[in-house]
Amino acid sequence: MSEAPTAAVLLIGDEILSGRTKDRNLGYIADFLTALGIDLKEARVVPDVEEAIVAAVNALRSAYSYVFTTGGIGPTHDDITADAVAKAFGVPIDHDPEAVALLQAYFDEIGREPNAARMRMARLPKGARMIPNPISRAPGFQIGNVYVMAGIPAIMQAMLLELAPGLGRGVPIRSATVTIRAGEGDIALGLGAIQKAHQGVVIGSYPFQADDGYAAQIVLRSRDPAALDAAQTEVRALAESLVRDGKARGFS
Amino acid sequence: MSEAPTAAVLLIGDEILSGRTKDRNLGYIADFLTALGIDLKEARVVPDVEEAIVAAVNALRSAYSYVFTTGGIGPTHDDITADAVAKAFGVPIDHDPEAVALLQAYFDEIGREPNAARMRMARLPKGARMIPNPISRAPGFQIGNVYVMAGIPAIMQAMLLELAPGLGRGVPIRSATVTIRAGEGDIALGLGAIQKAHQGVVIGSYPFQADDGYAAQIVLRSRDPAALDAAQTEVRALAESLVRDGKARGFS
Repeated sequence: MSEAPTAAVLLIGDEILSGRTKDRNLGYIADFLTALGIDLKEARVVPDVEEAIVAAVNALRSAYSYVFTTGGIGPTHDDITADAVAKAFGVPIDHDPEAVALLQAYFDEIGREPNAARMRMARLPKGARMIPNPISRAPGFQIGNVYVMAGIPAIMQAMLLELAPGLGRGVPIRSATVTIRAGEGDIALGLGAIQKAHQGVVIGSYPFQADDGYAAQIVLRSRDPAALDAAQTEVRALAESLVRDGKARGFS
Repeated sequence: MSEAPTAAVLLIGDEILSGRTKDRNLGYIADFLTALGIDLKEARVVPDVEEAIVAAVNALRSAYSYVFTTGGIGPTHDDITADAVAKAFGVPIDHDPEAVALLQAYFDEIGREPNAARMRMARLPKGARMIPNPISRAPGFQIGNVYVMAGIPAIMQAMLLELAPGLGRGVPIRSATVTIRAGEGDIALGLGAIQKAHQGVVIGSYPFQADDGYAAQIVLRSRDPAALDAAQTEVRALAESLVRDGKARGFS
């Protein structure tokens, strides 16, 4: 197995913890990183509270190759992510000349007043590099191994595309799914034995209610195609034996 | 302000971090706790890895009044939450006679073999109390201030209803929303001043794209109805002045 880069996601915002906003960014970033072969190992959600953001950024950036944050980089008083990230890195934060020029040109173009609140979005921690925002211009930024993005899904997704070329990649994880129309309890013993015999493959079982009763999706994941095939062959053989024993209604 | 209980949510499962499953439990639990006046302060997502679960459970249970976990309590080899929680508390785990009786009766009733895998779901950490599962019987459990629930949303929701009567409650947070049809950058300076003058109210600004241009929902949250009203009056006055100055297209 090659060493794959690891990552954490940090979602920042009171609105997610109050239930007001249902997060859609974590699942998107998870899919995106998986496709790049980067292992997302942890995610956290914290409120718009400086100490909470600082503590989470520092815990995560020391533990993983990359940290991706969303939220809190707009113009209002509750947008404190940039300041908190600067504090986490122990660096000052100030208006960045390039970001100032970019935003001033944009506000001129769309006829908006470049007031102090809007220009707050041109403040970057010392040593940070802008992540372009092709939608509403106010940039995200990268500092060290931390990537700070907007919370609005469309803008976050655009920023992710912008920053992706700079990321290291791992061998993508391949996956295979076998759907067995049986209760998980009838699959479990055989499946556990297969997992033990195939340590290079991670096997998960995800039960669901099918039209004709309980069923489970058996998902196999590995960076090694031969190991994946071998384990999948065994899971299919297990499913066949469950059908023969009248414990499964079929598989696919 | 009364001291409200605090809470953390811990979502457990490789499938959320790989992107395969898009979590729906966090938002549901957030709404549920907010209605009870319990402050959800943090959420984490960890994979089906014992050390990761143990570390997160111990970090969260010492920091908050309650911890709610979802996922990893089924019959398959990747269901390791109960063992990990036992380890976090430093207690043994074994089959619980009451849970065994309950599951054996259920499997008899539905004609399923009570095999070793299924009966794993009757294992509880020493000192834990069952959380009933009215849907598929296999229980969740409470140990100390940690509530361990299923990952399947319908079952998690049923368990949450079962355990709710045992939770302490805070004065529910009231909220008010003022939607201002203006760019956040034009709202920000006045809104920041209102936030400074009303420390007992938490004011958030959530921008969105309305049919006729940028707009923002200003959400005010407080346990004190009079403080909430006072701050809301000021936000409405701000919106009126923005309309007068031609900076807002309206508000509601």
